[in-house]
Order: sequence, then C-alpha cells, then structure tokens
Amino acid sequence: MKQTIIVIGGLAAGPSAASKAKRVNPDADVLLFERGEHVSYGICEIPYYVGGTITDVEYLVPFDASKLERTRGVRAKIGHSVEELLPTKKRIIVRDLERDKVVEFSYDKLIVATGSSPRKLPDINVSAKNVFQLKSLSDGMAIERFVSEKKPKHGVIIVGGYVGMEMCEALVGRDMKVALLHPEALPLSGLEEETRRAVLAELTQNGVDFKPLQNVKQFVTDGEGYVTKVVTDQASFDSDVVIVSIGVEPNSVLASRAGLRRGTYNGILTDERQLTSDDSIFAAGDCCEVRSLITRRWMYIPLGTYAARQGRVAGENAAGGHTLFKGALRAIAVKVFGLEVAQVGLSFAEAVEAGFDAVKVEVTSDSMVRYFPGNEEINIVGIADRRSKRLLGANVFGGRGSVLRANLLGFAIQHAIDADALFHSDQIYSPPFAPLWDPVLVFAGELRKVLGDR
Amino acid sequence: MKQTIIVIGGLAAGPSAASKAKRVNPDADVLLFERGEHVSYGICEIPYYVGGTITDVEYLVPFDASKLERTRGVRAKIGHSVEELLPTKKRIIVRDLERDKVVEFSYDKLIVATGSSPRKLPDINVSAKNVFQLKSLSDGMAIERFVSEKKPKHGVIIVGGYVGMEMCEALVGRDMKVALLHPEALPLSGLEEETRRAVLAELTQNGVDFKPLQNVKQFVTDGEGYVTKVVTDQASFDSDVVIVSIGVEPNSVLASRAGLRRGTYNGILTDERQLTSDDSIFAAGDCCEVRSLITRRWMYIPLGTYAARQGRVAGENAAGGHTLFKGALRAIAVKVFGLEVAQVGLSFAEAVEAGFDAVKVEVTSDSMVRYFPGNEEINIVGIADRRSKRLLGANVFGGRGSVLRANLLGFAIQHAIDADALFHSDQIYSPPFAPLWDPVLVFAGELRKVLGDR
Repeated sequence: MKQTIIVIGGLAAGPSAASKAKRVNPDADVLLFERGEHVSYGICEIPYYVGGTITDVEYLVPFDASKLERTRGVRAKIGHSVEELLPTKKRIIVRDLERDKVVEFSYDKLIVATGSSPRKLPDINVSAKNVFQLKSLSDGMAIERFVSEKKPKHGVIIVGGYVGMEMCEALVGRDMKVALLHPEALPLSGLEEETRRAVLAELTQNGVDFKPLQNVKQFVTDGEGYVTKVVTDQASFDSDVVIVSIGVEPNSVLASRAGLRRGTYNGILTDERQLTSDDSIFAAGDCCEVRSLITRRWMYIPLGTYAARQGRVAGENAAGGHTLFKGALRAIAVKVFGLEVAQVGLSFAEAVEAGFDAVKVEVTSDSMVRYFPGNEEINIVGIADRRSKRLLGANVFGGRGSVLRANLLGFAIQHAIDADALFHSDQIYSPPFAPLWDPVLVFAGELRKVLGDR
Repeated sequence: MKQTIIVIGGLAAGPSAASKAKRVNPDADVLLFERGEHVSYGICEIPYYVGGTITDVEYLVPFDASKLERTRGVRAKIGHSVEELLPTKKRIIVRDLERDKVVEFSYDKLIVATGSSPRKLPDINVSAKNVFQLKSLSDGMAIERFVSEKKPKHGVIIVGGYVGMEMCEALVGRDMKVALLHPEALPLSGLEEETRRAVLAELTQNGVDFKPLQNVKQFVTDGEGYVTKVVTDQASFDSDVVIVSIGVEPNSVLASRAGLRRGTYNGILTDERQLTSDDSIFAAGDCCEVRSLITRRWMYIPLGTYAARQGRVAGENAAGGHTLFKGALRAIAVKVFGLEVAQVGLSFAEAVEAGFDAVKVEVTSDSMVRYFPGNEEINIVGIADRRSKRLLGANVFGGRGSVLRANLLGFAIQHAIDADALFHSDQIYSPPFAPLWDPVLVFAGELRKVLGDR
C-alpha cells in the first residue's frame, strides 16, 4: 500500500523534510500543510529586504507551493492550519482557512515542523499599526510597506539581539533615528563582554542610540492606533515605528497536546533520527530542542541550518531510510554595520555552568599583511577547558574574514582538535588574504601558552 | 661556557631562528650573517610594491639589522657572505663584502637558512638593464624605479606561475600591455585544469595577452643594453621590460660542499627537529625540502610559512629545546585580478602518482545567499582517495572567501576528516557571509555521493 507522509509546516524544515521524503520514497504520497500564505522562504533575509539591500521580494521565495509540487512532487497546501494531532488514530485535523472547513487526514508517518513564534512582551498589546514583529515574509513586507509609505523618523527596536542588530542597520539605512532598548548593559546577551563592547562601539559610531538596562513597561498609543511613545522603567522614547524582536519560542502546543515529550525550553525532544516520543511522528526545526555537540545537553538554538539538516533527516527516516542528526555546535553570525560578529560553540558562562575548568583567551591580530590596504583587525575570544585542553567556544569579531575564521575554529571544536594541533595547522599566507601568521594561528599560539603547552 | 649559535641567512627563516634561539637561551651568543643589504623583509609583498598597492618600501622591512639586535638581542651582520662551512672544526669562513676581508667564526650550533635563488633561463643572459628577477627587496626596488622612470609600455612576463600572476596585475596596474609567456597550454602548472581555465579567463578579461606553449629561445638586445624583443620557439614579443619568474631553487651549495645530505630537488634534508645529517647543524626555510603531511614524501615547497615555522623549530632546538616541524600540507593562494585562487594538499596528478585511487569532484556554488548583493561564485575542485575516502587536496577559486574556505578544507585534510564528517560540520549561515549550505558543505555533499557514502 502507498505510504502517506504528512508534513506540518512550510518554512524551512518542512519543505526540506517533504522533498527528502519524496526523493527517498518516490511512491509515497507526501503532503505538506502550511497555515500562512508562503512556502519555503528565506526568513533570515527579511531585515535586508526591509533595509533595501535585497530589492525584490520575489527573490525571498525559492519555492512557492506550486513549484514544490511541480519540481519535488510534494502536494503543498497553504492556508491550511493543523488543529489537532490524533496519534492513536494516526490522523490529523486540518482547517482550510479560506473555506473555513475542517478535514481529517490520515498518515503513516507524520513530520512536525511547526517552527517558532516571536516571544511577546509581557502585559503589552503589540497590535498597534506601527508595531512589528519579524517572523514571516508577510511581516517583512508589512514593515517595508509601512516605512516606504509613512517615512517614519524615529524607530525604536526592542531588544539588541541578532535580529535587533540587523534591524538597526535596516532602519538606519532607511534614514531613521534609531533607539535600541536592551535589558542588559551591553547588546547581544549571549556573547562575551569583549565582543559586546565592540558591538556597542560599532552601533554608537553608526548613530544608533543604544539604551542599556531598559525594561519596557508601556506603549502609548494615539487615537489612530499608532504607538507614539515606548515607555520603559528608565525613560520614554518617541516612536514612529516599533520593532519587537525579543527572540522566539517553539511552536509546540499541538505536539504537547498530543502527548509528545518536550524539554525545559518547551521544544519537542527527539532522538538522533528526529523521532519524537511517538514512533510514527518525527519533528524538525525551530519547534525542537537540539543537543549540544559539546556537552550533550539540550539547548534551544532556532537556526535555519539546523532546520534544513533536521528536515532532511526527518524526511529520510520517515520514508524508510536511516540517517542521523547528531547535535548542534551553535555556529552563528551577524553583520553589525561594518563589523563581522560570529559565535561558535559555548560561551564562557555556559562552559563554567557545564562544569568545565574554563579559561578565556583574547587576541587581536591582522586580517591581512599589516601594511596592505584593507587590512583590518580580527579579534578572537576563545574559551577552552584547562583539564582536557579542549577548545569549547569562540567569539570572532572585527573586519572582513572574521566569520569564515570562526567556521575554522568551530570545525576544530567539533573535531576536538586541541590548541597545539591548531597552532601547527597549515594556513595560507598571501598578502591580500592573510598575514604570515593567520589570526587563528596567533590565537592558537596564545591559547597553548595559557594552557601550559609551551 | 657561553654557547655560540650562528645563523646563515637574514630573510625569513634566519631571523625567526635567531630570535627564537635567543629567547630560548638568553645567555647564548647569537650571530646572524646576511650577504645582502636587508634583513627580514616581506618578499611576498614585493609584487604589490611594484604594482603600487603598497606605497612605502619602509613597510616591507619589519626588522632591519640594528632593530634585530636592539629588540631581539641577535647580532646581525649584513653584507657578510659565508663562503665555507667547516663542520669538523665547527667553524665557518665569512667574507665581509664591504671591507673584502675574510674571517673565521666558530659555533656550537649552526643554522643554515640560505634560502633560494631564482631559476635561470637556460642559455640566456639575463643581465640586461630591463630584465628583472624577483627575489630580493633590491630587485623589487629596482623594478619599481625602472617602471617609474622609463614608463615602459610593453611588459613580457616569463612564466605564468604564482609570482607571474602577481606581476601581471602589478604591470597592468602600471598601465602596461602585458604578454605572459608560458610553456604549457594553461597558466599555473601545478593546479587542476578547471582552475587553470578560470585563471586564463580572468587574465584575458583583464587585458593580459597569455601566450601558451612558448619556450623562450633568445633575448634581442639593443646597443644600450636593453632587451627589445623576447624570442620564443613560436613568435617574438616586443619588450620594454622583462620579468623572469620561473621558480626558485634551494641555495644548498655551501651545505652540499660541507657534506650535508640533500634530496632530489637539491634541497637540504632534515629530520623533524630541522637537524641536518650533521648533528651540530640545523637548516630551515627555502634551502630545505619538506615532507608532505599526506604522503610523507619529500617535496620542494618554498613558502614563507614553512620558513617561519622551521626557523622557530631550528632556533629552539639549536638553543637546547625540543620541538618538531612535522611536515607541510602545502597551502598556497594567489590573487589573479578579481579571482581568488588557492591550493591545499595534493594535486590530482600527485595523488595518482603517490598511489592513491584518486577521484576528482568539482562543485560551483554561491559565496553568499544567491540574491544578496556581492554574491559570487565559489568553485571547489577536490581530490579524494576512493579506498580510504580521505580528502587529499583541493583547489578553490572564485569570489571573495575562496581562500579562507580553502583553509578549512586544508584543515580537514590535515586532520584526516572524511567527506561525511565534513558534510556534517556546522557552518555559519548568514546572508552577508554565507548561504544556507556553505560551499564547503555543498562540496562535501557531492564528494560523499561520489565516494558512495550516500
């Protein structure tokens, strides 16, 4: 009998899972349900659309529903909201939003890829006309349209996380004065203090008014439904447009109601096959927690890279294959105006918390030969374990090439390559690309001194 | 008694060795002899000085002789040519070139860092006033002066190797028409055909007249001692300036006359301590051969990175320490106008020759998210062993970030990380820096398909 595989969610993990499942078992009937209007779009690109770097919204949609069917053989249904999972009956209840009709579908294997939703500000109604969260292509288009039509002067961004950084650049690029409200003293809370100070300096230098230690208390709305002031426990800020980006949380209510096991971050827990606690249901993407490759602890790291990988793994396994997603390093980067900022692996605090005898080493070196035009500083803050001498994490920030060097450090972390071996690795020296001693070698040299290898 | 350590050669390996020896044993008397006028300069930067990218020659000299003495405690003597090694007496014979006086010095440990010399064109006298080789800072200054004063129109470069590429850009940057004469059909002989075709296209697009299959037969000189035509077995080329860069060969005659063991490339052979066949004499840098980290075979790879590392190792061991240089991956890059070109590890031909069941895989992918401004193609040609599934080498060429990605592949090769582990490595995705699937992941995915892992 023909196998039926149902995928819930059309953003990143869902289409990956569906396409992979169909490829592994071409005879299977693969159905994908997406509540929204779009399938498989580049959510990470939206700030660059708002800022005008990417000019055509069409480019953000690599696969729409019909193309997914045509090229991948996946029957994709947009505007369909899955309302309930019935694991014992191996059925789901789906509402066709346009026709407002409810239908049941039965599956052999189900893949939950319901993604995440923006966290809400406590006790604040964010439904005003000029307040935006940034979670869907529709949100991005709405902000872009608002900015183009209303030409707002004062932007308020809450808070200074990764998306907050990108939105600062986007709004400054649209000629706005931007106030960035953050609950801590420095932006980018998960990173090291050295990095965060550099980010603050870069924001300030580019005209962003960073406001530390702000807890948002109230939105003051005018008669037409626009927020004119954002009030915190410290001060009040004029706002023509407000961006709320305080992180996301897993969409796991459906899964939870169906009895699937969740973790401390409310994400769905799976094994390395992406199988949930129900042996016919897989899960993938932002609705899941991931295990750290370093500590094996559960973390919540909603990134497109994991969504794509987990989607493929879930799809392949649902279709009868066998493949594993072994966990996440955490490898993330953001451009803060002219500054490249990247994090790989654990933070110092996480390393301490996980029981490592953690040590932190910082070096500043040159991206190219010192007197070559275009040479910039590259800073590496590395976290290592004194006992095992293992590298656990790193922040890399500075000029061009910082992010790609973070990838090399991340690679060393994943493969448990120690400071000494890193120092002895053969790195390219060529004046336009790297100095005689590449920044990663300068860092490794310093780290092995600190670890007592030299 | 006070230890005397003598270093012969003041370019890259020599100063590294001398400084390290003094640091390891501050009581030692460390002497360095250099035949030329300069110590410790950036030879790799010279094409960029000629081309006008680096504007001040002072920047090319990180340490002159007096600074080496002042800051490192090394007594450096320029204009001193070592004429003979007397290993049985542990003495050397040195000629002070200015005073034309010969003096003997005795050593406890000797470090030979005599570097390399440009190869000569057979049967051609290259002493004309407008013919230059590119091996010393003085050469670089002479070319720059000649170009500035004579404003030559026609440049002929022999041949299309790494330095030839850089000199093409330098001379085109000085408004010259450049003919590049090469003995093979494509430039950059050690690289893969795919890479070489791309390099040829880039050269042509930037106005360089690449002439394949040329064997230079004669220089036609006018009455004033200028070469006006370069004649090959195919044609004749007008020349206002001629650059001869046909590679280098080890300066190992002194060592050879003293009975030190040399290899098939005429380079000095050492063990991993950089000790030669004489147990009081170390050698480092371009005068040495190196063992391949992959095949353990001897190769001749005269690169500044090995000179610096071997110098440190020789210096430390000469001063009584113990450290090793375990061999070379070969990691090299060159900028060909707008094209980044890098090679790590073995070529396909070398892999076959070394007995591997070699396979070649090529992928072309995006440096950033496809529709992001500044996205460029990155091409990876990888060489792997079908039996062990090990990655053996790679060429990476294309847009920005090609070279740093080659470093990651080189790192994987050195640590014997296979295609599957490479594919599962966690690489950053961020629109301004890398697409969802970084080029190294796209390559690894394709490679594991070819190797039958998927």
